[in-house]
Parts: sequence; structure tokens; C-alpha cells
Amino acid sequence: MTAAAPCRADVEAAAARLAGLVRRTPVLRVAALDARAGAELWLKCENLQDVGAFKARGALHAASRLSEAQRARGLVTYSSGNHAQAVAAAARRLGVPATIAMPVDAPAIKVRGVERLGGTIVRAGTTSDDRRAAALEIVARTGAALIEPFDDDDVIAGQGTATLELLAQVAEAGGALDAVAVPVGGGGLVAGAALACEGTGIAVWGVEPAAANALGASLAAGERVAVPPGPTIADGLKPVMIGARNFAIARRLLAGAVTVDDDELGDALVALLLEAKVLVEPSGAAALAAALRGLPGRPARVGVILSGGNVAPELIARLLARHG
Amino acid sequence: MTAAAPCRADVEAAAARLAGLVRRTPVLRVAALDARAGAELWLKCENLQDVGAFKARGALHAASRLSEAQRARGLVTYSSGNHAQAVAAAARRLGVPATIAMPVDAPAIKVRGVERLGGTIVRAGTTSDDRRAAALEIVARTGAALIEPFDDDDVIAGQGTATLELLAQVAEAGGALDAVAVPVGGGGLVAGAALACEGTGIAVWGVEPAAANALGASLAAGERVAVPPGPTIADGLKPVMIGARNFAIARRLLAGAVTVDDDELGDALVALLLEAKVLVEPSGAAALAAALRGLPGRPARVGVILSGGNVAPELIARLLARHG
Repeated sequence: MTAAAPCRADVEAAAARLAGLVRRTPVLRVAALDARAGAELWLKCENLQDVGAFKARGALHAASRLSEAQRARGLVTYSSGNHAQAVAAAARRLGVPATIAMPVDAPAIKVRGVERLGGTIVRAGTTSDDRRAAALEIVARTGAALIEPFDDDDVIAGQGTATLELLAQVAEAGGALDAVAVPVGGGGLVAGAALACEGTGIAVWGVEPAAANALGASLAAGERVAVPPGPTIADGLKPVMIGARNFAIARRLLAGAVTVDDDELGDALVALLLEAKVLVEPSGAAALAAALRGLPGRPARVGVILSGGNVAPELIARLLARHG
Repeated sequence: MTAAAPCRADVEAAAARLAGLVRRTPVLRVAALDARAGAELWLKCENLQDVGAFKARGALHAASRLSEAQRARGLVTYSSGNHAQAVAAAARRLGVPATIAMPVDAPAIKVRGVERLGGTIVRAGTTSDDRRAAALEIVARTGAALIEPFDDDDVIAGQGTATLELLAQVAEAGGALDAVAVPVGGGGLVAGAALACEGTGIAVWGVEPAAANALGASLAAGERVAVPPGPTIADGLKPVMIGARNFAIARRLLAGAVTVDDDELGDALVALLLEAKVLVEPSGAAALAAALRGLPGRPARVGVILSGGNVAPELIARLLARHG
């Protein structure tokens, strides 16, 4: 157990490995949103990534790090959200089977997404612990490889490629960043962003729902604490606890964590739809919500990670009626 | 009056002139839409262009072709739609005033868009003729330059740069196209697309609302005919008649024209929102609607121009309820 701490080079290596396998998603500049934020915003559109979310990066990176022999026995994961589709898509690309433990009450749209990608679904209880136990049972029985949702160095490095790519795209456009805002669930995306920005002087801020601020609470406590999530429309940002590896990186490298409420999330989602012309899910709008309110220290040039775009039509309509 | 007929070189020259002044909009590939269409679709996102529509290209190109002295007296146009904002944006970029004749019943959202860009609005009746007369009166009185909405060689060449850019992006991604589908209003975008594809062997199809098929009727008649538009949600595709220059190019170079109905437009708009994660206006979804039904001859590789994304929130919600 003498592995070196993860660093920027791990994200660079992941980017090299993923080149041509995931999309180089566009970065948008929208004058009307800049005006509202009082800052120059660079919107990184991971909602336009394969499977509609950045999760495609970490899953494919972790899977591609397996040996051929490991891989041949298939991939397994547990998820009620975008990671399920990401692992199914990675398995399809590698030509191996995928089995996903999903809750018995998983939304039909997400079940269909996994099925469409050829994944096998195993229904397992309603909690994350139920699903994880089911996944581990499959691993023990079949020898398949478990692809963790966030608490894994290869997954973190893969997710970090979204931010690394953003930095390159901003530079190509002749710009530069003072800060990056990143939605936080289990902490895969934000830990990867922190690694990608290591040594650049760019401040990385995690953004959480006010009702599920496990990162902020853990940073304040100096250790990981469990925060039972309250109700929020950001269904992708509701872990009970930040991952151990993710927290270690966050504690070392993050500028801090801020929270946004459902009203700000809905407003940001609608602003992205009407002004930027892109659809994000509520979780995917969290970083813009924080940027519109203003990040601490009021950075002038802000990278904003739009993490995903998978959202039910009824919720879009409801938010348009409220914030449109 | 011995000017040569417009050709591909005019679009290439326009692209050189516009380089760095308009956005190189992304091209998306979406597996779920390919599967529905039974073809490989390349989606050109002009909804992500400045002012949310391809109109930014033609307006800026025409304005940039004026002499400094002409330009200094300001720009004038008439429009109830995206061209109004495009001319206001072009004037702002060139540092000259813009005056836009808009109908007295123009939607508040479009009036605000022009005002936000610093344009001066003159209210003029409710018909296109009313608006054009008001614009010509301003030109006569002030010496300002009229930027026509579509029946103008410089505007056509500017709009053609969207398709020229698409061809380059497809080639860069290692692909090729058999056909391009383009929404048709007055014919600026489709005439430009036809010029951009001249000599490439790529078939260019115009797509019109069934209730406003002025191009198809004119092609069938062998001459321009007026078609009073019926009701359609594609508010940007309702000219009474195709432009003269546009028709001459279309007649010479187009593969043909097809129509789509409001049900197909709504379905395509919602499919783009939920599967491609981008917002288009009903007019902007016309080419995808035709591709989903299948273009004549069933081309295997189809460029689809998503022409704009300016749409009222209430209409998005209504279409989601119906097609989501």
C-alpha cells in the first residue's frame, strides 16, 4: 500500500487512454449568462457526452485499465443513475457483458437506458447498500470486475479528463480561468477536477444541494461525516457520504464547497435551456447556479461543469412553468 | 448587371471573412436519433450560434461587405424574427447603430432581444410589406444600409457558411455525407447550403411546413408562386414567397423540397431536447423531422441543419406534454 497520492499526471494519462473513445464535448460562451453572473463563464457541456453525462469517462477509463482476462468476465456495478448507463456503454464498447444492480423502484427511463445499451439488470432493494451487496455477490460468484461509482482512483482520473479538456479548450480560445465550479455527489467529478487543476492556480469549488451537503460538512469536520440527504430535485447529488479517496483529494486540493437550493437549481436549469439552448438535469445545473449567485472571492473567469442532461420531461415542464 | 451567378467560391470567401466573427458551432452525433432515422445523422447546431440562430452569419457577412462610409450611417432591416437580432448584433460588433422595423404585435421576447443588443425599434404595421416600407423610408431619410433578410447574394453566401463548416467538420471526423436537409423560410439558408454543396455530389433537400410550402410549389410550377401560409408552429418558415435570388439557386442546384407537419415538428423538437440535449425552435427542428421520416432515396449519411433555438417556454412545455 505504498501507491503515490493521485496527481495531475494520472488525469493526463487517463485523457491519453480515453482519446477518441469519449467525446470532446463543446464549451459554450453565452453573453446573457455572463451578464447575469458578472463574470466570464465557460460552460463545459458534459450533458452532450455519451450517455448524457460525464460518467462515461470514469467508467470507460476504469474498464479500460482492466486486463483482457479480467474484462472478459464482464463488468458489474450498482447505481440508480447515470453511472449505470455509463458502465453498460463501456461494456458494449469493450464487447463484454455488463450487469447492473438497480433499485426495485428505479425510474423506468433509466432502466430503459441500460437495457438499450445491452446491460443486464438485477433488482436489489431500495438503498445503495442493498445494491452494493448485490453487486459484490455477483462479483464473488462470477469473477466479473466491479466498476465503483466514485470511490476509485481510475474512476476519479477518468472524470478529471472533463476538466482537463476544459482547460485546454479555454486556452485554445485564447482565454484563462480563475476558478472552476463542479457539482458534487459522491465526489468523483470534483476530485478529478481538483487533480486536473493541481498546480495551475485555478480554484476548484464543489457545489452541493443545500439539502445534501456531505462534502461541506466533512470539510468543516475535518473528516468524512454522513449526511442523510433531504429532498432536492438534484437526484444525482444525494450520496450519504463522500468517497474516502474523493475526500482525501478534496481536503488537500479544493478551494471549498458551496451550496445551492432547489430554487437556484431550477432557475439555472431554465436559464441554460432558454439562453444557452442546452438541456441539463438539475444536478447538472448546480455549478451554474453557484456561478450565478457568485463564487466566494468573486473570480472573474469561471469554468462551469454542466455534468449531465438526463431529466424527465415532466420535470422540465414544471421548472419552465416556474422559472420560464 | 453582368455579375456571374453565385457559386461555391462565394461561400468560401464569406467563410474567410467571417472567421473568428461567428461561432464554429458544434456538430452532434446521437445514436438514438440515428436508430430512429435508420441513417447516420450529423446535427449542425446553429441553435448554438450567436443570437441563437444561423441568421448571425448572413447579417454580419452582408454588413462586413459595406464600406466604412456606408456602415457608419448605420444598418436597417425589417423582421419579426431572428434576423432582427442578427442585424442588431452585427451593428453592435461593427460599432454602428441599427434600426429594426418590427410589427406592432411583435412578441415581447423578440423585442427584448433586439433592445438587449442595443438596436432601435420602429413599430410598423403587422405585415412584412408594412415593415419593409418602413425600413425603406428610414434608408431614404438617413442613408443607412438595408440588410435584406434573405433575398441578397451576400446574405445567402453568409448563411451558406453554416453548411460549408458542417462539411469540413464531418470530414475532420472521418465521415462523409450523401445529403443535407435544410429548413426553408425565405430561402437564405437553403440557397447557401446548395452553393456550399455545389460540385460535391451531396444532395441538398429543402424542408418546409406542409402549411407553408412556397418553395415546393414554386419548384413544381417552374416559377416563384405566392403561397399564403396556413397555421404552423414553425413561425420562422412562413414567407409568402421564396426570394428571387434564392429561387434561382434552388432551381439550379436543389435535389428537391419535402414537407413536414406540426406533429412531426413537435416530435422532432422533443427528440432533440431529450436525446440530443439541445433546444431548437420548431422551425429549427424541420430538417430532423424530415430525416426521421426518411428523405427521398433514403440517403445513408445525412447532414441536418438545426437552424435556431429561440422558442417561448410555454411552447416547449406544451410540446413536451404532447410528445415527451
